[in-house]
Amino acid sequence: MDIDALADRIARGDRRALARGITLVESGRADHRTAAVALLDRLAGRGEAMRIGLSGTPGVGKSTFIESFGTLLTGQGHRVAVLAVDPSSARSGGSILGDKTRMERLSRDPNAFIRPSPSQTELGGVARRTREAVRLCEVAGFDVVLIETVGVGQSETLVSWMTDLFVLLLAPGGGDELQGVKRGIMEMADLILVNKADGDLKSAATRTRADYAGALQLLRKRPQDPQGFPKALAVSAQADTGLTEAWTEMQSLHAWRVEHGHWETTRRAQNVHWFEEDVQQGILARLRTDPAMAAALGDLREAVEAGERPPSAAAAEVLDRLALPGAGGA
Amino acid sequence: MDIDALADRIARGDRRALARGITLVESGRADHRTAAVALLDRLAGRGEAMRIGLSGTPGVGKSTFIESFGTLLTGQGHRVAVLAVDPSSARSGGSILGDKTRMERLSRDPNAFIRPSPSQTELGGVARRTREAVRLCEVAGFDVVLIETVGVGQSETLVSWMTDLFVLLLAPGGGDELQGVKRGIMEMADLILVNKADGDLKSAATRTRADYAGALQLLRKRPQDPQGFPKALAVSAQADTGLTEAWTEMQSLHAWRVEHGHWETTRRAQNVHWFEEDVQQGILARLRTDPAMAAALGDLREAVEAGERPPSAAAAEVLDRLALPGAGGA
Repeated sequence: MDIDALADRIARGDRRALARGITLVESGRADHRTAAVALLDRLAGRGEAMRIGLSGTPGVGKSTFIESFGTLLTGQGHRVAVLAVDPSSARSGGSILGDKTRMERLSRDPNAFIRPSPSQTELGGVARRTREAVRLCEVAGFDVVLIETVGVGQSETLVSWMTDLFVLLLAPGGGDELQGVKRGIMEMADLILVNKADGDLKSAATRTRADYAGALQLLRKRPQDPQGFPKALAVSAQADTGLTEAWTEMQSLHAWRVEHGHWETTRRAQNVHWFEEDVQQGILARLRTDPAMAAALGDLREAVEAGERPPSAAAAEVLDRLALPGAGGA
Repeated sequence: MDIDALADRIARGDRRALARGITLVESGRADHRTAAVALLDRLAGRGEAMRIGLSGTPGVGKSTFIESFGTLLTGQGHRVAVLAVDPSSARSGGSILGDKTRMERLSRDPNAFIRPSPSQTELGGVARRTREAVRLCEVAGFDVVLIETVGVGQSETLVSWMTDLFVLLLAPGGGDELQGVKRGIMEMADLILVNKADGDLKSAATRTRADYAGALQLLRKRPQDPQGFPKALAVSAQADTGLTEAWTEMQSLHAWRVEHGHWETTRRAQNVHWFEEDVQQGILARLRTDPAMAAALGDLREAVEAGERPPSAAAAEVLDRLALPGAGGA
């Protein structure tokens, strides 16, 4: 594979090259991984998009929202990429974005790029690769990247390590509608959008928005935010209302963070986070590929799980079996 | 050092041996660490306390609460140990529990054991050692262990990996009082106690409790909890009111989780978590003790932070420099 040529084509905004690059970073094959690492290295330091995490449980109208919101942005001259971190698709083998017919307008839009979620099995692995796919989209000239999740908690945490903003989409109604939203996600949101503020549900959406605005005021205080954030708004993706306001809020929060240095601080911390993750995961992966080591790790893990061995002693045994540079205790 | 003898004395409930054991697990010296690992290994599988995480910002009355609550428990025949995870003490060199005079009754109570927080510099390291101190207290026959934190966020996450229950202590009043409580902590609480429900503040505390009860109802839903949890109660550590009710709620939640298997599931996951943490931290610590490796890691980290190298390529370089068993990509 000619990595230089692929890198050049991606940097020129070639959509087929971008799709091929993403397939490469998502691949589990060792030779593909080596090529993906080289590709990303070649493209380092280029491109800078606003990265937006978008979470919401099924039924909240996420596809319709992406369709309307994405079309709004391309109408303003932005180039929009949509990616998904979807651990459930790993099980079904399907993809939350696989059905592009639910986003007919946007998928035909020359300034939008919709990528179905990868069907990997390991959540951390998927997220790491999604982050790399985001990088490729940036390099290809997409200046807004939406990363979609399904509200299961762990994936939101991972997505927060690769985004600048986090938007939570909710349905109108009381607390019951929140059953599907796992704890901790509310806390991560920069903007809560109560969708379906149209027709019969309009007044319910307005009430729900007010409830969340009150709860946010009571529960939050973040030094890195300007006054008034996190915010709750009522929108209708179907009727196309409130989306311009939502986008204005996102831009204003983003601009504030850039101006006050929070954006750069966050990006730097995110970079280091993925580096350390990659080192640790890489070391563990290599340990598991050594049969004797893998067996020993499994046995020790079981003993620790059952409380028969303390974690420290079991870990010391693992370290003793490794011939690492350096010496001495932890 | 005779580890066997020390282990025996701790298991017989000898307070001086317990204090010495904790000093050992808290020590940063390599030979002490080796001895601590051996000590914990010797004592594996013994003792089982209810571990309670307690968080609250300075001024909320945490010392008074521990004094009154701890005395209530020893009065019921429990043996209570109090430990602290206090990252701020690492900076000041002091200790949140150092001033035992603030807990005069409890510190003279033969059925209580109060341990000032260790003055370590690395938060993860402190927490790991606190977890080991908790183990020693359990083995020494303390059946309730309180682990105190100061509401800075990261330490609460670490404490949640070593406790069965998480209690958040708040002051009466509106949202303003929450300035010191970092985001995410509210989400972790099983029980929110609004303290100082006495005298002039009583009605404010009652109102605050109702506000939080409402917010909890709106924001939470945890499958591993019985109906009604997380809960908010008003208490007064000073006037000694509401503490019996709070303890009853903790016992009932704990019993429910034990009965439904959630307690065991959590403990097993916690054990594995610390094992994996120890392995990863141990590997990274050994890397850093190798001068050439440490220099390379530092350079790569800087390049990643500045966005000059992608995390994946920098991590691949680190892995290539290691001669680990196994081979192939991540």
